[in-house]
Amino acid sequence: MPRTLRAVALGGGHGLSATLRALRFLSEDITAVVTVADDGGSSGRLRDEFGCLPPGDLRMALAALCEGNEWGRTWRDVLQHRFASDGPLGGHAVGNLLIAALWEKLGDEVAGLDLVGRLLGAGGRVLPMSAIPLVIEADLHIEPTADSSHRGAEPVAPRTIRGQVTVAEARGRLDNVHLVPDNPPVRPEVLQALEAADLIILGPGSWYTSVLPHLLVPDLAAAIRSAKARRMIVMNLAPQDQETAGLTPADHLRVLQDHDAALRCDTVIADPLAVADPDDLVHSAYAMGGRVVFRQVRSAERADVHDPLRLAAAIRDAYEGSLGDVAPNLDEE
Amino acid sequence: MPRTLRAVALGGGHGLSATLRALRFLSEDITAVVTVADDGGSSGRLRDEFGCLPPGDLRMALAALCEGNEWGRTWRDVLQHRFASDGPLGGHAVGNLLIAALWEKLGDEVAGLDLVGRLLGAGGRVLPMSAIPLVIEADLHIEPTADSSHRGAEPVAPRTIRGQVTVAEARGRLDNVHLVPDNPPVRPEVLQALEAADLIILGPGSWYTSVLPHLLVPDLAAAIRSAKARRMIVMNLAPQDQETAGLTPADHLRVLQDHDAALRCDTVIADPLAVADPDDLVHSAYAMGGRVVFRQVRSAERADVHDPLRLAAAIRDAYEGSLGDVAPNLDEE
Repeated sequence: MPRTLRAVALGGGHGLSATLRALRFLSEDITAVVTVADDGGSSGRLRDEFGCLPPGDLRMALAALCEGNEWGRTWRDVLQHRFASDGPLGGHAVGNLLIAALWEKLGDEVAGLDLVGRLLGAGGRVLPMSAIPLVIEADLHIEPTADSSHRGAEPVAPRTIRGQVTVAEARGRLDNVHLVPDNPPVRPEVLQALEAADLIILGPGSWYTSVLPHLLVPDLAAAIRSAKARRMIVMNLAPQDQETAGLTPADHLRVLQDHDAALRCDTVIADPLAVADPDDLVHSAYAMGGRVVFRQVRSAERADVHDPLRLAAAIRDAYEGSLGDVAPNLDEE
Repeated sequence: MPRTLRAVALGGGHGLSATLRALRFLSEDITAVVTVADDGGSSGRLRDEFGCLPPGDLRMALAALCEGNEWGRTWRDVLQHRFASDGPLGGHAVGNLLIAALWEKLGDEVAGLDLVGRLLGAGGRVLPMSAIPLVIEADLHIEPTADSSHRGAEPVAPRTIRGQVTVAEARGRLDNVHLVPDNPPVRPEVLQALEAADLIILGPGSWYTSVLPHLLVPDLAAAIRSAKARRMIVMNLAPQDQETAGLTPADHLRVLQDHDAALRCDTVIADPLAVADPDDLVHSAYAMGGRVVFRQVRSAERADVHDPLRLAAAIRDAYEGSLGDVAPNLDEE
């Protein structure tokens, strides 16, 4: 690996935090690029009140990058704290309020995030994937079931659902996921980080609402495609939400390709226990130009959570192209 | 002056900030003891929502003690920033929210204030004058006027008014100012600071709501009395509120004595332009055991604002007992 690995991780929520915690072991030059389509909870309320970017996922990424000393950990815990009252502040994460205040005061989102990063001694930079807040929309297909009230022969027409919370909680098959506006501006800091990167990692995370959206921003997707970096995708350990119920790991990759046919990927990192049909995943990865690195990346305590050290080891192995890569056995076909 | 002057400043609001900014030039061991009876604005809303101490005056004192470098000034400005929205966060000072969050998270007010002090690189410590939030009450006397609707011969009976905002805005003569509860617990850190102090300063500030309240907390008043420190009172430059309309500087001292007959004071610092009757003030100070140091302490730009450097010089002069002290000319009596 290069002495100073320049890593860019794209995602949102807990999945991105897992990647960032792993990258802390490998890199001192990390950039997190974070979804800004959230419309729920504390972030949604701040977005309603100020028209600002939803700060929650940005805050979580900063927390994941905090310095490991007492100061960094203390402020991380403070920024992650949520007010417990039943009043107007109840449920707000302290860091969300601080970030929103910095944006209002400084008038520049990246400057505000950089200042919180300095407070935390963050080992990297956190940037929004778009310069403006986004709305996520998708077509929801609900298949008629035996106990359904739809007894006619016609399948139910898909309907458009709107908003990250609604999409994440949708029960049914999603397609045509898209962003409003559909071509939002991307901060130059994001494009510069991608251009300079040695390694770009997408995922894990809520697939439709934290991973896929990065590929739906045209300037961002183009920068990912044209980057000289190695591109990796880190698969989920378990279905994260209703939104991906019924999708296999290979389906997850196909969802990305369905929305961005030009996406190429060098390596897919997957935990063997989370992949019922390894061959299918291997073929899916191959269709994107990539190989699969199967490693135990789950935590020993919770099978649905990535272990930062194990994930770091897998990323290192994948970057160095060491033992265990799996390409499809094309002879069998 | 001692090489390390241990100074305690008691007050609230802008007046206390003026003293703290002056003390920064004289001391590296400053303790601010701050009123906690505020029930208005952002502080009042947080008090309603969380039942916590009102953080606003504590925040202002921390801001006044911030380190003078870019980091300290940046975070000071952030903590002083108020949200501009019309929504639930509108008008809240960022620092108030942060302090309230730290209190909720840490469960200890002093620990939370110390952490904000570390963030700011504060040159001192900020403590609440009471361990619990207080309510201020007073008797309001309204004298009948010619254009009053009260045409009877009887003077109007005083009525009790309640709450710092109401008291500060009262039009009429106040007496019997008192706190509810009337004997609140005082943090041991406050008592230790007073016991160790070389210098104790009371004022300037809103007299009934920021200065006097310290003398109404029995344990605090006793600690001020028994301290070995020099005691100073810094007079206001102009009537600060309706509450003291019509009171002369000498009356201000008499208000303190009326409520705490045992209060002794070594020095009273006053600006000559703010004292129409110097002799009266000198006699008032003498009655408390003190002398008056007349100095220009007002800012060159605003006659109602203390200049930190000039106030520092006056405090130094008063502490060292140098030229210009005025004792009453008793021969004239």
